[in-house]
Amino acid sequence: MALHPSLEPARALIGTWRGQGRGEYPTIAPFEYTEEVTFADVGKPFLVYAQRTWSPEGSAMHVETGYLRVPGNGTIELVLAQPTGQTELAEGPVITEPRGFSAELRSRVVNAATAKTVDETIRRIRLDGDTLTTSFDMAAVGVPMTRHLSAVLTRAEATDAG
Amino acid sequence: MALHPSLEPARALIGTWRGQGRGEYPTIAPFEYTEEVTFADVGKPFLVYAQRTWSPEGSAMHVETGYLRVPGNGTIELVLAQPTGQTELAEGPVITEPRGFSAELRSRVVNAATAKTVDETIRRIRLDGDTLTTSFDMAAVGVPMTRHLSAVLTRAEATDAG
Repeated sequence: MALHPSLEPARALIGTWRGQGRGEYPTIAPFEYTEEVTFADVGKPFLVYAQRTWSPEGSAMHVETGYLRVPGNGTIELVLAQPTGQTELAEGPVITEPRGFSAELRSRVVNAATAKTVDETIRRIRLDGDTLTTSFDMAAVGVPMTRHLSAVLTRAEATDAG
Repeated sequence: MALHPSLEPARALIGTWRGQGRGEYPTIAPFEYTEEVTFADVGKPFLVYAQRTWSPEGSAMHVETGYLRVPGNGTIELVLAQPTGQTELAEGPVITEPRGFSAELRSRVVNAATAKTVDETIRRIRLDGDTLTTSFDMAAVGVPMTRHLSAVLTRAEATDAG
């Protein structure tokens, strides 16, 4: 099944990425985690995005899911659902680089009535050959825009879904 | 692995549901579809939600994904991502019924810059024993709140993910 032509700029993202990350925020103690990200082609004009993290001891931590869109105007759009009670519509321009690209996605967030309040997030991704570097800043729970997560991932085999 | 206690009110939803639906909207021709919905327990205080539809000829149509939350205040929250470029945070009270429950979830929608504009949606679900009846109204593309989808699903075995 051929990749939908609109997804050509994101072709190098398709697959599973795995690596280590670090979390921090003014309201919490810093922490380390293992992360797995998958961008899956399902024959449609979007990629299915899924992310999971585990503690150093191997227990499941965060998950998130959604879709990556490449609308053809030089931007990418990440449509996300979070089990912590947030939706995020993250959009931004793609900058071509020698061995990949980088993008800074700014989000519009909606919080569930019973969730902690996240006001805005900035997701940065940089693809450099077989390395995917990501960061996640957020303005949340009264704290202005501040780094929360950063990770360096490399191409990997998928683990069993769970 | 025991179900997280907060999910007890939603226990009867867990599993796979399959059936027939009908779509309509003032801007399109009516259509029929087959739908499969899964609510999966992953040992966390939320259920993983996934939905897929197929045309009568068997070709893949819509998908959506997200999480069902049961915050314990008599409401349920559905945190959704749509590959058509919308996020939906749909919330509403749960009404207990003799053989299940019903709920009317009103959403706050964010549209991607390049997506069609959906202003608001109302999702109704009614669980009656082994039957799950759903409907989806939306105010979109200049049309006021109007029925778009309705389906009747029954408990089923999961098909292969795809």
